[in-house]
Amino acid sequence: MRVFNFSAGPAVLPEPVLQQAAAEMMDWHGSGMSVMEMSHRGKEFIGIADQAEADLRTLLAIPANYKVLFLQGGAIAENAIVPMNLLAGRTSADYINTGEWSKKSLKEAKKYCTVNVAASAEDKNFTYVPVQNTWKLTPGAAFVHVCTNETIGGVEYQWTPDTGDIPLVADMSSHLLSRPVDIAKFGVIYGGAQKNMGPAGLTLVIVRDDLLDRALPVTPSAFHWKEQAAADSMLNTPPTYAIYIAGLTFQWLMKQGGVPAIEKRNIAKAALLYDYLDSTAFYRNDVRKEDRSRMNVPFKLADDKLDDAFLKGAQAHGMQQLKGHRAVGGMRASIYNAMPVEGIEALVAYMREFERTHG
Amino acid sequence: MRVFNFSAGPAVLPEPVLQQAAAEMMDWHGSGMSVMEMSHRGKEFIGIADQAEADLRTLLAIPANYKVLFLQGGAIAENAIVPMNLLAGRTSADYINTGEWSKKSLKEAKKYCTVNVAASAEDKNFTYVPVQNTWKLTPGAAFVHVCTNETIGGVEYQWTPDTGDIPLVADMSSHLLSRPVDIAKFGVIYGGAQKNMGPAGLTLVIVRDDLLDRALPVTPSAFHWKEQAAADSMLNTPPTYAIYIAGLTFQWLMKQGGVPAIEKRNIAKAALLYDYLDSTAFYRNDVRKEDRSRMNVPFKLADDKLDDAFLKGAQAHGMQQLKGHRAVGGMRASIYNAMPVEGIEALVAYMREFERTHG
Repeated sequence: MRVFNFSAGPAVLPEPVLQQAAAEMMDWHGSGMSVMEMSHRGKEFIGIADQAEADLRTLLAIPANYKVLFLQGGAIAENAIVPMNLLAGRTSADYINTGEWSKKSLKEAKKYCTVNVAASAEDKNFTYVPVQNTWKLTPGAAFVHVCTNETIGGVEYQWTPDTGDIPLVADMSSHLLSRPVDIAKFGVIYGGAQKNMGPAGLTLVIVRDDLLDRALPVTPSAFHWKEQAAADSMLNTPPTYAIYIAGLTFQWLMKQGGVPAIEKRNIAKAALLYDYLDSTAFYRNDVRKEDRSRMNVPFKLADDKLDDAFLKGAQAHGMQQLKGHRAVGGMRASIYNAMPVEGIEALVAYMREFERTHG
Repeated sequence: MRVFNFSAGPAVLPEPVLQQAAAEMMDWHGSGMSVMEMSHRGKEFIGIADQAEADLRTLLAIPANYKVLFLQGGAIAENAIVPMNLLAGRTSADYINTGEWSKKSLKEAKKYCTVNVAASAEDKNFTYVPVQNTWKLTPGAAFVHVCTNETIGGVEYQWTPDTGDIPLVADMSSHLLSRPVDIAKFGVIYGGAQKNMGPAGLTLVIVRDDLLDRALPVTPSAFHWKEQAAADSMLNTPPTYAIYIAGLTFQWLMKQGGVPAIEKRNIAKAALLYDYLDSTAFYRNDVRKEDRSRMNVPFKLADDKLDDAFLKGAQAHGMQQLKGHRAVGGMRASIYNAMPVEGIEALVAYMREFERTHG
């Protein structure tokens, strides 16, 4: 029996995607082999990768002057790879600090450049996104880096920053494909796949092509965006099976009506949970309402001595991975695209019942 | 119907591994989720990863003072990551050049240090391994780098170099797990998984623990061996599904009798093909006999105008991916652990028949 899996990532995938992957495991479309066994340079896999890129371009309306790269290493690797690829001729970058993932990014960037924290929400324990008129941007910075959805803190940009001529770089790992995004406002968008795209081990980079000439000489070839763009992401062997699963997920998303349709569902799903949280003092979410994430909903029990009982009961009801990240404690429900509304209904029903019996 | 897949990588996997993966796709061991959906920090996946490492340690008899890391990026990424992790306080490294993969490695290393080519087989078009008494090693080099099986040229070390106090670093991507290896003779062993281990997207690094203090400050955290060793390869989200498939492959290999047993089969399989190649002037393999690879067997038709007909006929007989690498042309049969002897028998039978009808 399948459970409701609230993991922050790797995370729940659409059931039809997994069913198709299982059915095609031994023999993909009469090729006589599994996708896992295919040469990445054979026509079968090239077809799979090209279709995945084309579908992603359609889903996100990616302009033609942006390259789409399928790489490896996740957002944590990109924390180094981003500055490596953008710092030639420049010595500093601006970072907006909205939580645990921003902190990781800016700490890693310090290996390669001077990091200016242009705005920070640390004063209120990372429960909000600093509005743009408080940002102290640095003239001549190589780029401005934001994390548009903080997976741990549950803080999400509901607006798009404007950094003028300075390229805006966004870690969108945990909300990419959950809502429309105006790609043209960004210089670089990156993210690990293991939230709304597919399995861990695949990293997406969307980069405006005029930014491909800024790599430092120490940039490894496998992570050199210009070289990878020239090689259609096949300078090294790509994570083929992860790309295949991402491609199936893109097709599933198109069948759901695409990104605008899934956004409506995500808004409704998040409202179910936040409305309940706001209706009781038994639980609480500390994030400023206008900055709340639709994807990751951290919450705390007023009495944290009940945490273990809450988690145990949730598991008994077929709900997994609700424990909050160790950095912040409490609970967290990650409700990505593939989480059905029934999962959130079940969670809220359980929370009500737990409040009734423990309140 | 399954084909015989002679791809150099990604490559054929054991059928029982794929069957088990398909059967467990929707619900792994009653967990209610696919391995792809599991948090990498949950007890289920930690169990999978720990078992995979333990089985690999058993299969290769890895000494306790070596760390096993499951990373990303493949051997091409490691071409940069290796020097980054070993160059602190040193300025040069020695490389043995035995073919296309050695060339890639030493070219990338030049970004980080002075590269001395201590021996090269370029004089004879990379058809042999230079014997060690011809190597001109550099005193004080940070390490000596070898590629112990050249996937493209089909050249394999049948002996273990001795570099004294200077750490020996080996790219073993395409023959790791095909034969026993005395790990203690090496400082670092690395390889992409997509030959004998599992799917593309997983990179194995085996590193002696006294070498973990030599990383350059520019080393990205995700590829910093010491930091990854301290984090049990979970400093970033690991390629979880690829680790799971590798683990199933390790279990399959143990059921085959382990590495010594598979080596016997690999010797017999390679002999079938080389003996036939040596029995006719219609085909030829140019590698010095004592340096021939058991894993990758390049061969040429005496008349290369027949290449297309040969490949077309092979496909009609259910044999795929026999075209040689574009760098060298001709044909190549990659016959990894998971290639059954029946595949090689079928290939030789086809080659005989093709010779009879076209000779």
